Formats: sequence, C-alpha cells, structure tokens
Amino acid sequence: MTKKNADYLLKITPVGGVGQIGSNMTLVQSQKDCIIIDAGILFPYEDFFDINYLIPDLAHIPEPSHLVITHGHEDHIGAVVDVVKKFPKIQIIATPFTLALIRKKLEFNHLQAKLVEYKVSDELGFHEFNIYPIHVNHSIPETVGLLIKDQKEKMGLFFTSDFKIDHVSPYERPFDFQKLKRLSANLESRLLLCDSTNITSSALTTKGEAEIIPVMDELFQQAPERIFITCFSSNIHRLSTIINLAVKHNKKVVPYGRSMISYLNSANELGMIPNFEKAVRMPETVKGDTENLIVLLSGCQGDFRGTFRRFCMGEDSIFKPRPTDTVILSSKAIPGNEKKISLLLNKLAEVNCHIFTPQTHLVHVSGHPGRKDLLELFSEYKPHHIIPIHGETYFIREHIKFIQEEYPNAQTHYILNNDELTISQDLKLKTTQCEHFEPILIHGKGIEIQRPRISERRKLACNGAIFVSLKLSSTKAKVESFTYDYLGLPDLIHETDDKFNKFLNHYFITINFKDIEAATEDLRVAIRKYFDQSLGYKPMTTVHVL
Amino acid sequence: MTKKNADYLLKITPVGGVGQIGSNMTLVQSQKDCIIIDAGILFPYEDFFDINYLIPDLAHIPEPSHLVITHGHEDHIGAVVDVVKKFPKIQIIATPFTLALIRKKLEFNHLQAKLVEYKVSDELGFHEFNIYPIHVNHSIPETVGLLIKDQKEKMGLFFTSDFKIDHVSPYERPFDFQKLKRLSANLESRLLLCDSTNITSSALTTKGEAEIIPVMDELFQQAPERIFITCFSSNIHRLSTIINLAVKHNKKVVPYGRSMISYLNSANELGMIPNFEKAVRMPETVKGDTENLIVLLSGCQGDFRGTFRRFCMGEDSIFKPRPTDTVILSSKAIPGNEKKISLLLNKLAEVNCHIFTPQTHLVHVSGHPGRKDLLELFSEYKPHHIIPIHGETYFIREHIKFIQEEYPNAQTHYILNNDELTISQDLKLKTTQCEHFEPILIHGKGIEIQRPRISERRKLACNGAIFVSLKLSSTKAKVESFTYDYLGLPDLIHETDDKFNKFLNHYFITINFKDIEAATEDLRVAIRKYFDQSLGYKPMTTVHVL
Repeated sequence: MTKKNADYLLKITPVGGVGQIGSNMTLVQSQKDCIIIDAGILFPYEDFFDINYLIPDLAHIPEPSHLVITHGHEDHIGAVVDVVKKFPKIQIIATPFTLALIRKKLEFNHLQAKLVEYKVSDELGFHEFNIYPIHVNHSIPETVGLLIKDQKEKMGLFFTSDFKIDHVSPYERPFDFQKLKRLSANLESRLLLCDSTNITSSALTTKGEAEIIPVMDELFQQAPERIFITCFSSNIHRLSTIINLAVKHNKKVVPYGRSMISYLNSANELGMIPNFEKAVRMPETVKGDTENLIVLLSGCQGDFRGTFRRFCMGEDSIFKPRPTDTVILSSKAIPGNEKKISLLLNKLAEVNCHIFTPQTHLVHVSGHPGRKDLLELFSEYKPHHIIPIHGETYFIREHIKFIQEEYPNAQTHYILNNDELTISQDLKLKTTQCEHFEPILIHGKGIEIQRPRISERRKLACNGAIFVSLKLSSTKAKVESFTYDYLGLPDLIHETDDKFNKFLNHYFITINFKDIEAATEDLRVAIRKYFDQSLGYKPMTTVHVL
Repeated sequence: MTKKNADYLLKITPVGGVGQIGSNMTLVQSQKDCIIIDAGILFPYEDFFDINYLIPDLAHIPEPSHLVITHGHEDHIGAVVDVVKKFPKIQIIATPFTLALIRKKLEFNHLQAKLVEYKVSDELGFHEFNIYPIHVNHSIPETVGLLIKDQKEKMGLFFTSDFKIDHVSPYERPFDFQKLKRLSANLESRLLLCDSTNITSSALTTKGEAEIIPVMDELFQQAPERIFITCFSSNIHRLSTIINLAVKHNKKVVPYGRSMISYLNSANELGMIPNFEKAVRMPETVKGDTENLIVLLSGCQGDFRGTFRRFCMGEDSIFKPRPTDTVILSSKAIPGNEKKISLLLNKLAEVNCHIFTPQTHLVHVSGHPGRKDLLELFSEYKPHHIIPIHGETYFIREHIKFIQEEYPNAQTHYILNNDELTISQDLKLKTTQCEHFEPILIHGKGIEIQRPRISERRKLACNGAIFVSLKLSSTKAKVESFTYDYLGLPDLIHETDDKFNKFLNHYFITINFKDIEAATEDLRVAIRKYFDQSLGYKPMTTVHVL
C-alpha cells in the first residue's frame, strides 16, 4: 500500500476477496478513521495438502479500530480470530446472530475481544463517515450491505457484501431498496462495491428460497423411508424449510455433525427456528433405524472429515446408507469440490439410494445475484461508479464488461486485493495498483506454513523420499555401516535392493569423507540420479553422515 | 470373475468404464472366443499426486485373442501399451486414423504388436460371433459402435461406445441408423450397451459441431490481434473448423504443444485436413508477435506441464499473453479440473485478454448424447434390453431410472466393472456380481505404484517428515552423536530447536539400546507425540540408529 496520500475523503483497499472467492476483507480509511469490513478465510484453492484455510496477509495493513461484519459466513468471519490476535484492541461490530457465531469462535480459541452488537436499523458513526446498514437477502440470516457516507453527505459508497434479491422469501423481507434509495438519493456521487460471484452464471435471475419448498414437500411425500439432507449448516432459512416440512409430514429432524448442531443451536437460541422444539431431536436421542427421520448432515462439500462423507462411505457408526434412503443434496459444489462430491454420489448409487441433486431437482438456490438481479440493483441505486468485488479476477473482468455493455451510465473501476481506490475531496476516483501479497496458509494448531514448505510437501508427495544414514569409521576413512528407508516409493524398488547396495558400496570407495558436507551432497545427488534412471523421477533424498 | 459357466451364448464383462468415467475396456466371450473392446486409461480421479494415469487391473482377465478399438481417445486406447505388455500375442484391430495413433504409442514404447486395419464397412468375423461396425458421431473422427451378432443371428448386442448424434456435421455423415436397423431388424433379441456420460446434463439434445462455426467466425472477425485456442488435440473436426476459418480470415494456424502437433500431423497424413498446407505453420517457423496468428494450445484441462497452462502463467518463451489477445476455451473442464482451469482464466484476466469460454459463448459442443438423443437411438434400434455403460455409478443408476421412465419397452440391467452379463442360448439375460478390482496406478516410467505407497505420500504431504539419525557408542551404552532434518514443516519449528535438542538428550538417557529395534520404535513414537503437541499433527518420522 502507498503512504498516506494528501487529502482524500475515503480510501478503500480490498485486503481479500477481490481476485479470489473468499477471505473477504476490506479496509476503509479516511484521514482519521481506519476500519475493516469483514474478516474471512479462503478455502484452499489449489492443492495445499490438508491445510486448514488461508487468510489475507495482515502484516501490511494499518491497525484498524473497528471490524464491521456484514454476515456470518466463514469467508466473512473465519479470520476474526487471526485479526484479534494481530490487533487485540479492535472492536468487533456485528448483528446478533453473527455476533453469536463470532463469540463461539473466540471462546473456542480462548480469546477475548470487545464485541458490539448492531441492528440493521442502527447507524454506525465514525470520525469522518457514518455507516448505514441496509438489509439484503443472502443464504444466511441477518446479512447486511453497508452504505458509507461522508459527514457532509456528498458521497455514498454502497458495499453490497454478498447478496441476492428475494422478493418472496417466507423468512425475511426483500432487499431494502427503499432505505438504500432514501439515504442515497441526494448524494452528489454514488459508488457501488458489488458482489461478482455469479456473474458468469447462466441463471440471469437467482431463484428465491420459497421455490424450494414445493419440491422438498414432494420429495418428503415420496420418500419411502429415511431422508438425509446435506446443505450448508449456516443456511438457517433452508434448515427452517426442512424443519417446517418435517412438522407437516410428521417427521423428526436430527442435526448430525458438529457444525450443523452448532449453527442450529445458535439460531434457535435467538428464536429463529419456531418449530425447533416440535421437530428437532439430537442424534444421541434417536436410533439409526427410525423410519420417520430426516437427518441433516454437515460437510456438504464432501470434506474429508465431514459427516456427509462419512455417511456416504458407509463409515458412520449410527447411519449407514440403505436402498430405501432418500438423499438430497441441498447445496452446490464450491468450484474445486465437484469431483470429491461426485465420488460420494457413486457410493450412494452403489447402495441404490434415491438421490436428488440441484442438477436434477430444484433443491438448492444460490445466494448471489444473477446478471438481471445486478441490473435491478443498478436501476434502483443508480450508481455513478461501480467497482466489482467478491470474485476471482476473471469474474471481476466479466462484471466490468457486463456493466459497460448493460449499464453504461456508471463508470467502472478495476481493483484487486491490495490495490487502492481513493475518493478525493472533490469526489474524483483514482485507482492505484499496489504490491500484491499472497494469502497466508494456516495448518494444524493455527500455525502459518510457508509456501516453500508446501513445495517440499509437494515434492515428497510426487516423488517419494529416501533417507540414508552412514556411520564413518573413527578415522573417517571408510563407511562402517549404513542403512536406508524408502517412503512412498513403488514396491518394485525393493526387488532391486541388492543392486542399490552394490551401488552404494561402490560409491563409498570413490568418495572422500574429509569434507563431510561436500561428500554428503555428492552422495545425495548420486542417489537421486540412480533412482531417476529406473523410476523416471528423483525421490527427495536426505543423507546423514555420522 | 466366475469360472466358465455352462452354456452361454455370450458373456460381457466390463473391465473398466462402468462405475467410472474412463479406462473403457469390455471383455466379450463366447465358448470359443475371448476378445476385448477398447483399452483405455483413467485420469486420476482423486489426489494421487502426479501419477500418470490408472489402468484396469489386467491380472484377472483371461487372455484375449483380439483387441477391437472403437475410437482413438485416450480413455479407449491409452492402455494399449499395458495390454500388449501383458498379452503380447494379442491382435489389435482399429480403423486407419485410430491405428495411426496406436502405432505412435507402440513405437514410443519400443513395442511391437500385430495391427489389423478395418473399415467401418467391414465385417469382423470370430468363431461364434461377427462384429459389424456402425458409424456414429463423436468428438474424434472414425468413431464406431459395434453390433455383435451370434452366428445364428438370433441375438444382437449393440455396443455404442462413446457417441452423439450429429445430423448436420460438415465433416462426417450422421450416426448410421440405417445400417444398424438393417442388420438388427430381424433379431429375436436386441441388446444395447449404451453411453451414460451426459445422462445428468441439462442439455437434452447435444448440439452439432456445425453450430460452433458462426460463433468462431464472429470471434475471429472481432479479434483485435492474436487468437489463442485450446481444445482437445484429438478433436480433429474442431481443428478443421478453426483451420478453415483461418483460411477465410487470412490467418495462419500454429499448433503448439506436443500432442496438438502430433494429432494434427496424424490426421493430415491421412488427408483429413484439406486446408493444412494453406494455413498451418509449425511454431519454429513463426515469431510470437505476428498479428495474424491463431495458436492452438494443447493441455486444455490446465495440466501442470501443458502448453495452455504455460501460456496462461506467462511462462512460455515464445507466446506471452497480451491485452490484445483473444483466448478461446473450446473445451469443457473434465470434472475435477474446474478450479485448475479457472485459476488460469484469472491469470489471463489479470493481463486483460479477451476471454471466451463455453459458459459464455457456443465455442464447444459435447461428444456425448443428451437424454433426447438417447431416446432417438432407442426408438431407432428398438432394444429389448439396455445395459448402461461408460459412466460413474451414479450416472448408471440415473440412466436406468431414465430408461424405466421414458422407454419402458426395454428391460434394464445394472452391472459395474468386473460384473458379468451372461446371455444364455435361449437368450435369457443374467447379471452376476463379481469381485471388484481397483484400477492400478501408473507413475514415472510406466511403473505401478501401490495404494499403500500413495497413502504414505499423502501422509508425507499432509504432515511433513522428520528424519533422525543416532550414532551409538561402541558399547551401545549411549548416544555418541545425532542429527535430524525437517521436511515440509512450518518455519516456526526451527525456533524451538533448542527445546527439541533438550528433549532428545533427555530421552536418550532413559532409553535402553540393548534392544535396538524396540528403542528405535519408542523414540520414533515419542518424537511424533512431541511435535503433535506444538503442531497439532504428527509428522512422519524415521529414526536410524547406527
């Protein structure tokens, strides 16, 4: 990021979420203020081998006073713990349900932070700007967009966060265009930071949550026996649909999996699940063979340690798939997880379960706007400037192309993570390309693992490893004994052990152990070459000389 | 597989391709005949770390006399080399283009085999059945379905192979329903082994190759400068479309990447590319900055070592992406490759290339039948029995459900790899579930790597490795010296080296090296536990005591 430049009104820096899907975090600065909006994680987007998640690199941002959260998805709150560790004085501002989720996270990590609750009707005042929460629709309750206005009310910047437009949701009112328009109508300049997630989707309008209900109703009616449903645990409205239909069909709902139970309890504690007592039963109170069961499985992305996967693989101790089971995937694969999920469908198909997916039935709707929905927002808010956010670079470019073609009234601006968008006192916009920082990989007990270490892991996985130890005679003149181990190498290699032993013994004679370091490296290189000839690749080789 | 059972007319055993997409191989046996149809590879369907491919386990099939090939895709011919190694006497029967591809494969591997060319008009005679090739459409030229009829012409089994129905292809005649009907009309029993690849696709009818032409034409017209296109190198008709349009727009076509050049040359040698001389130039003859270039990039699946990836990453020495470049993805992601490809699109978007994909433009059509196409085949051939093949287990089940709902005239039969379908002398069908064998993983120089070794690789990649060596005193009473190395572990671990040294020294005192094996194992377990406490996972640990 550049040094504080003279006299801007507002400076916006996406720290995460622009140029990638996830790890949403946006820095908003005025001369006197420095806050961040959201603190999300990024799910591993390429093969990082079992790491937990990625977070934006926090080393390069100034200390923010506040963290304002738009909604409780992991890609918006997952890095709260990391932010609190880095900036212990930060105040976290969120709506009740989101705050409940954050509180659990902090407790789990034995961390404390100043938490402040806000309601969508509130106004959040800072030194030089105010933030007006605007109710939007999404796939988790209490999602808000944020309208940021300078004190003089010349300029407004509407940060959509993730959103959709649902005019007929049974669970919440539609996107609050009225409030947005009321608060922005008289502004000289209206800016829009807008969700790009579904810009390449062929669905121009995103369907409403209500459209799932008759489909689920029919599937519940048809189901010969037990019903298993997997969806995002945070999709409380989806869970409500299922629980309400369970009451109608006289079935019991069992949340199964840590996150499913946790989200459902959080929502219920805030009174968001009216039929909870009537229909929901905890897994320890039911037997696997009860007929009238609807089991809600967490891990809809096929996660390796997830409940959905365990069920499909037949590895769960209570619930094993049966031909009479109905299995509904009420969620879509996040890009990268398609194959993992389809392999699980095969497992269910082997058993001959009744399988229903979003590809064949309307059992899932997206939480993001299609292109026509975007146009609806544009025509309501009438932005002068649009800056696409929340999307991979390709999506950001496609979004800009779309705006240029379909809403030429607005000027478009292209920024990625770490770049700056500056709004001057006279409301001119400037984008500045800055140094880009790679997200940080977190593994195990919340520990950063560096990319060169991931490269080592990749080499180990792709080429296997050989460990060789030698014991020199006291004069270092000869090798007294040696031993070696192969890891991850084909069994064939054991058949040629004699040859390898001969090779080593022959090599030891030629080598001078006076310079142990050089001798060790020579031997290491020679062993790699030796195996390359037979295997076609060089195992990672470590040699110890003692 | 079961032992030869009494008195069947024909026995069909899918060796690969049923319950998975790829490694297509089908065993066809009568009392006196044993042949296989196709010998394909399976692309890695989960994280097998850089292996080349998978092949069906050939240890469990009887020796076939002939291998009849339906078309030249890798999932139908990729394992020919492995089959020839296992069954050196086998005769390989294929059409001219396919045979040219197989010949290259064998030459590359310094292998010889008896090769026999057939034309689609030929009849292939065996002891107890004849095979009649039927021309079908697909995404590679010279694709044939095979109608197998017993000598008495009571029964016919039509093996579709991969197919689509293209009534208006500019490059080949439509699926030869006339021949299929003529040869099967009078049979008592008609069986169909039918492609399931697109059964869950929302496109009910697969579009024809011709429909791409006007779209490509328009894109070529618009392109401000160079055009880069990636598609399957074997899609010769697609390449013809591009080359023909290049002539029209006065552009030159440069195939770039080993497989693109190889396929194009093979097709040209057989006279399949009329405009080759006029438009095609080899990469060494052109400069990267020529304006009127169309560059055909191989590696459309984003393969790690592929040309398309190298270009996108800006790592190619001749062609670097520029904002004036048009990049067309004329292929779809094979499930599992979506994310890999989308990351490459991001790289192109950073440069601001003009990107066109099948999601936004009709620049690709599938090579497999939609559900309406399947019904067209059913109503033409009028099968009594349908056995879905070529698909994952979920697809096979969905295909059966579809037939039961939409074509109840036919009986459906469910078999997976290694199962048997027996047709008795009186034309009764029986399916027998048999032991299933996992496909074999091939890595490096065509060497089998066992699944337990892959598990080791996974552990190395997910948990890193520690390698510790100790040198004992001559009496084995104490440790004289030791050394250790970390592989793939977070940098943090180096900060606690002192603590680890203390831990080891302390541990050495407590341990009794009389039983070296037990002592080594104790130490290994203790080290793993030690690191688990700080990291949250146990590195793979190897201890050498000398």
